Amino acid sequence: MEDCIFCKIIKGEIPSYKIYEDKDAYAFLDIADDYEGHTLVVPKRHCVNALDCPADVMAAVMNAVQKISRHYVEHCGYEGVNLVNCSGAAAQQSVFHFHMHIIPRKTGDGTDLFSDKSKKGADMAQLQKKLCLSE
Amino acid sequence: MEDCIFCKIIKGEIPSYKIYEDKDAYAFLDIADDYEGHTLVVPKRHCVNALDCPADVMAAVMNAVQKISRHYVEHCGYEGVNLVNCSGAAAQQSVFHFHMHIIPRKTGDGTDLFSDKSKKGADMAQLQKKLCLSE
Repeated sequence: MEDCIFCKIIKGEIPSYKIYEDKDAYAFLDIADDYEGHTLVVPKRHCVNALDCPADVMAAVMNAVQKISRHYVEHCGYEGVNLVNCSGAAAQQSVFHFHMHIIPRKTGDGTDLFSDKSKKGADMAQLQKKLCLSE
Repeated sequence: MEDCIFCKIIKGEIPSYKIYEDKDAYAFLDIADDYEGHTLVVPKRHCVNALDCPADVMAAVMNAVQKISRHYVEHCGYEGVNLVNCSGAAAQQSVFHFHMHIIPRKTGDGTDLFSDKSKKGADMAQLQKKLCLSE
């Protein structure tokens, strides 16, 4: 898509620190430089996020995500990974081309993804009623 | 798997606030009660995490994740979702049955998944060299 920064990265019109590429997916380092090895995996076909992304595009992204995650743990000295997706501006999505974050992790690295652990006192049965989805 | 709390939830041996079920996946509210509507989507077939999970199991989980996410945004009053997976104890995985977290989001809900935004001053070219994976 025109004016999409990730489409431009995929086409090589904007430089990136490429980590992996196959026919359907492209992965590169997040220049936010916030978490060591923070990687973004994107589909070559433009989708906005996990809400509009077709199943085959999702599968291609997750295939690349799994390959890279295994590589990080088996060969690069990490012990685990977090996978994170932000779908929607309200969910902290800032670039509107679907991307899965990989955050490689080591014991005691100080990262805490779920920083808010306070109980909210929600009525779980009520919530279930509100959110339940029949097949 | 015996002694797996999520396998027991799937079998109904432990009660849960079920949100969705199909032949390959099961979704229920996270009793952590930390984020409103915090949902866990798990495969019925036991896998440890995204590192050992076969592609077909991952696809089944992501299919359910997308269905539920769309339902939350289209029908339940949320504006977006975060998807989060923790693979490995070092990555804050606490139950060792593969699960994808869905955190429904609304503008201004106060949640911040990426709370550490400080630049680490990493040598990006060096990191790329360390992490790069050929197809």
